[in-house]
Amino acid sequence: MTDTTFDILGIGNAIVDVVARAEDTFLSRHDMHKGAMILVDAGQAEAIYAAMPPGEESSGGSAANTCAVAAALGARVAYFGKVADDQLGAVFRHDMQASGVHFPSKPLIAGAPTARCLILVTPDGQRTMNTYLGACVKLDELDVDESVVAAAAVTYLEGYLFDPPAAQAAFRKAAAAAHAAGRQVALSLSDAFCVDRHRADFRELVARDVDILFANETEITSLYEENTFEAAAAAAGRDVALAVLTRSEAGSIILRGSERAEVAAEPARVVDTTGAGDAYAAGFLAGYTAGKPLPVCGRMGSIAAAEIISHYGARPEANLNKLIAGL
Amino acid sequence: MTDTTFDILGIGNAIVDVVARAEDTFLSRHDMHKGAMILVDAGQAEAIYAAMPPGEESSGGSAANTCAVAAALGARVAYFGKVADDQLGAVFRHDMQASGVHFPSKPLIAGAPTARCLILVTPDGQRTMNTYLGACVKLDELDVDESVVAAAAVTYLEGYLFDPPAAQAAFRKAAAAAHAAGRQVALSLSDAFCVDRHRADFRELVARDVDILFANETEITSLYEENTFEAAAAAAGRDVALAVLTRSEAGSIILRGSERAEVAAEPARVVDTTGAGDAYAAGFLAGYTAGKPLPVCGRMGSIAAAEIISHYGARPEANLNKLIAGL
Repeated sequence: MTDTTFDILGIGNAIVDVVARAEDTFLSRHDMHKGAMILVDAGQAEAIYAAMPPGEESSGGSAANTCAVAAALGARVAYFGKVADDQLGAVFRHDMQASGVHFPSKPLIAGAPTARCLILVTPDGQRTMNTYLGACVKLDELDVDESVVAAAAVTYLEGYLFDPPAAQAAFRKAAAAAHAAGRQVALSLSDAFCVDRHRADFRELVARDVDILFANETEITSLYEENTFEAAAAAAGRDVALAVLTRSEAGSIILRGSERAEVAAEPARVVDTTGAGDAYAAGFLAGYTAGKPLPVCGRMGSIAAAEIISHYGARPEANLNKLIAGL
Repeated sequence: MTDTTFDILGIGNAIVDVVARAEDTFLSRHDMHKGAMILVDAGQAEAIYAAMPPGEESSGGSAANTCAVAAALGARVAYFGKVADDQLGAVFRHDMQASGVHFPSKPLIAGAPTARCLILVTPDGQRTMNTYLGACVKLDELDVDESVVAAAAVTYLEGYLFDPPAAQAAFRKAAAAAHAAGRQVALSLSDAFCVDRHRADFRELVARDVDILFANETEITSLYEENTFEAAAAAAGRDVALAVLTRSEAGSIILRGSERAEVAAEPARVVDTTGAGDAYAAGFLAGYTAGKPLPVCGRMGSIAAAEIISHYGARPEANLNKLIAGL
């Protein structure tokens, strides 16, 4: 196996977040399910935006958040995702590059605008997301540069990538290229509603192509349609070489064959949970690709997640390297 | 005098802020003067943006910030400013309207993009601003709807409006229309460098057309080229009916004829001073147009400013009405 150029290659929906604070009544008035991500079309996005309080824009996207956090932790990171040739696409590109992430994907010309996710943050810190996929639906196999995949220790795929239809082919091409080069494939299940939408495909993909699975409690129980976390975790442990399962304030559990590590959550004052799972995966993978033991990888994930949920937005504000110093 | 439809009409540069955290070394490396606002052209803006850390976008613009804060305080507010027909222009428009501000200005079609201000916030909370005026340079007399001016108790003009050349005519037209309708004209001096650029014009305008002058210590001493705050304040007191002078953590001083009110600053943990003066003016004018005594107007300004500097961005996050309850 040749040396790697990148520790992590993320592939995902390239999205700009529009974050606004809202009361619970706003969610109920617009039939939104708190904590979930739903897909909306252009017209719905416009209607929700018109009704939303003033917002703040920042680059988002699940795998893209993971990439930005991992780069802040010192990992060598690349990212594939589809933005449009517009102002928000330029914002997304700037933020990735300024985060130190290699972002070679060409923008979509003369198509839908850059994707945006309208995020309502309620006073309890929960985020409820309405995603207009825009240019993301044009991400396809052609966007997967196999030489970059082959040069990355871990190719990390977000489950949301199963929503735009053409991206599934990109997904499978990347997984095949990674394994052909002797690399590993990681998948994050993204959210329970996404798992519901694609359960059969996910089950097949996880069993066949995924080496490292990231999921939270509702996602993993949904994937395996099990009633208990332990039963779902056992199923994951049989399917993948490495299962990394998060349980919010109850910490995380990491399973590798007969090895089991339990990691406590890092204490944090919750302001906005947007990006918590993305940041956990970033910390974990930054540790993992640096050869750290699993409990340390989990600690790095917990610390990164705690930083992200302590402020609005899914990208780091504090110096993450200082926070993990000594691990 | 007929009844008013609006308490405050703001006129200013319609700008989207791009806020990033940076070390002091970033400022020195790019020859930036900490705390100042400088104008940059499209090429300079691109170069600075390329060098900047990841940012967050939010609607800004000095008078626009004042309008959003005043509306949050319950004032009836309108705003004139020029955005382009692009994504950032749509963001700006959404945020004004979602703040409850009447924003009738037509966007610029097929010209420069919406203005943006590249803001570097250093660890001491100071913001250093690089403004690309873009579509703002096309704001002119035609954008001043005199019926709206006549319907507003106070027309509030930001000093920065003197930077785009055509806006000066808009400025003078608005002042004339306000006075013709028996209304008042307020001016904020914006910053000391802006005063330097336009001192003679400002001096003439203040003496002739301004009823209410907002300035901080460096701005007012620069305007009157006085060495001491008290000498400059006395000069302002002679020029305008009402002078509202802020001194950061030393509070504010309000002069109306022989009346003098001194108001303490509200304690705050400084995160980002962007918009502090804008918020002070908003609180003051919301109180003033509601008929409050000057010390109460000053307190409302101080409370609004304290909220704004306690977080990133120049628009309110907390419920401002709760913060001023009982005043």
